[in-house]
Amino acid sequence: MKLASLKSGRDGRLVVVSDDLAYYADAAHIAPTLQAALDDWDRVAPSLQALAIDVRNDAIPLERFHEHAAAAPLPRAYQWADGSAYVNHVQLVRQARGAEMPDSFWHDPLVYQGGSDGFLGARDAIPLADEAWGCDCEAEVVVVTGDVPQGASREEALAAVRLVGLTNDVSLRNLIPGELAKGFGFFQSKPASAMSPVFVTPDALGDRWRDGKLHGCLTVDLNGQAFGRADAGVDMTFDFGTLIAHLAKTRSLGAGTIVGSGTVSNRDSDGGPGKPISEGGLGYSCIAEVRTVETILRGKAETPFLKSGDTVRITMDDERHHPIFGVIEQTVA
Amino acid sequence: MKLASLKSGRDGRLVVVSDDLAYYADAAHIAPTLQAALDDWDRVAPSLQALAIDVRNDAIPLERFHEHAAAAPLPRAYQWADGSAYVNHVQLVRQARGAEMPDSFWHDPLVYQGGSDGFLGARDAIPLADEAWGCDCEAEVVVVTGDVPQGASREEALAAVRLVGLTNDVSLRNLIPGELAKGFGFFQSKPASAMSPVFVTPDALGDRWRDGKLHGCLTVDLNGQAFGRADAGVDMTFDFGTLIAHLAKTRSLGAGTIVGSGTVSNRDSDGGPGKPISEGGLGYSCIAEVRTVETILRGKAETPFLKSGDTVRITMDDERHHPIFGVIEQTVA
Repeated sequence: MKLASLKSGRDGRLVVVSDDLAYYADAAHIAPTLQAALDDWDRVAPSLQALAIDVRNDAIPLERFHEHAAAAPLPRAYQWADGSAYVNHVQLVRQARGAEMPDSFWHDPLVYQGGSDGFLGARDAIPLADEAWGCDCEAEVVVVTGDVPQGASREEALAAVRLVGLTNDVSLRNLIPGELAKGFGFFQSKPASAMSPVFVTPDALGDRWRDGKLHGCLTVDLNGQAFGRADAGVDMTFDFGTLIAHLAKTRSLGAGTIVGSGTVSNRDSDGGPGKPISEGGLGYSCIAEVRTVETILRGKAETPFLKSGDTVRITMDDERHHPIFGVIEQTVA
Repeated sequence: MKLASLKSGRDGRLVVVSDDLAYYADAAHIAPTLQAALDDWDRVAPSLQALAIDVRNDAIPLERFHEHAAAAPLPRAYQWADGSAYVNHVQLVRQARGAEMPDSFWHDPLVYQGGSDGFLGARDAIPLADEAWGCDCEAEVVVVTGDVPQGASREEALAAVRLVGLTNDVSLRNLIPGELAKGFGFFQSKPASAMSPVFVTPDALGDRWRDGKLHGCLTVDLNGQAFGRADAGVDMTFDFGTLIAHLAKTRSLGAGTIVGSGTVSNRDSDGGPGKPISEGGLGYSCIAEVRTVETILRGKAETPFLKSGDTVRITMDDERHHPIFGVIEQTVA
């Protein structure tokens, strides 16, 4: 099933959305918010699934679903942990700044603790106060978990995945070096991320959800131009089960934990850094990566970061070219 | 007024506690949880204040307040950002490992994004799976904010402080070097922190809350022995207004954001590192700091990290030797 939160109050109003994203049915009589549903999933999910069947069969009155009326499925969450599971991306970024990447990065997941007190809706503007901060998009896959006990195995972690979606993890690149130099990770350089209009249960994804990964072409367009077409199921060094188990090593994770994959990134077919789509490559899921490749190949970054008025579009289509999770489409304000 | 959350479900049940922490009145008819109260503070706070006056005047039926029945006032929160405002502590830790501290650390606040999906109650055990992780306590001051808009000034930030409390920010010291070496901050090395039984509104703290700081002796005992007696109002380089404004530079902060001071730390009266209480000093608010001082003075750390069965006690007394926020008293399990 597909779930969304219509904009309403701080936590939105839970609705079940039709598979084609055209209609919705209010689910507030089952659970007022998605967080409430996740808090009591075993009891609530069967009722939501029954409602989803009614939606599919047109067995109840439906309302038209408008993606711009959707908040982030969890407009605020208790936990947002973002991985860097596409190690190819990490290696490129390091290579561009002349920093060696430890071999352990291929075996030990890299994650950062993100801020979860506010997520943007899929069509919300990116509120950028200063273009000098170097605003970038990062197209990623996210999953939402139920409760995960401390010390959970990869298999237990995977079994706790409740929902899958997409995110634009907004990053302020020019604030990152200063923050990382202080040694304590990101804060100012990672403002609110945007979430896809709907999150989808793994069972509704069929063969696209396997081995703890989402498979399919992640479409990223900048200002209407094709920018990224990487496959989210390729070159993902750490699957979500491994990422979640890593996160739960020393503490439990609460229901509604959002875990990110990090920027999706594919190697070129020749094994080197990805080429632009205009040169027959799969392109990039963030501007930093194309700048990195430009730096490696030509000695300097050429693609600018986002400016006021620029648009970012992130989606993943099904076989019939319908967006599975709806479309993230944001303008920088 | 003093607010607590009795253990109940995921978010506790909001109660107003008497100034001496002996009694409480249920506040669920005003707001079911502390987060609900913070979400609608301007409307809810006057009703809670009226209830607090009734509690003070013994004008309504009261129940006996037991600190061990209290969850963390926010058993889970949407944002937990922890500063390192006592730069003396940061400098000592760096000095012990032979790392220079940049001068900017005296002007630019150091913060990390913490995980907020689960906080321990004040008497909950510390669930330590492996003593080799190097479990440490960190006694800190915390504040809870209302909504803070992006770009808030220090004064606006201070005006958004709703509640003040104490925390034991549990840290796994032996996991920190590996995580910091990866460059993305803490995750596994910062498991769930514990919160004081009650949080207190700034107006109820009188002169102890001034200049954006909590003033008073922070009592830290380890296994029944006096360990720390630093004054939280002394040597705090960045007050809470400055910390919150730093956090809000690139994004807004949601109501219920918890902001930590970092480990409270006072210089010795001679300007050098603090001395143990047994030598007439003010002692330490975490084990890492005494180990640091031992390393600087004697070439090697002697005080061990926490083992199973060890107890940590953190409190701050008022003039009549009554704990203002109740007592954090945890055993390592």
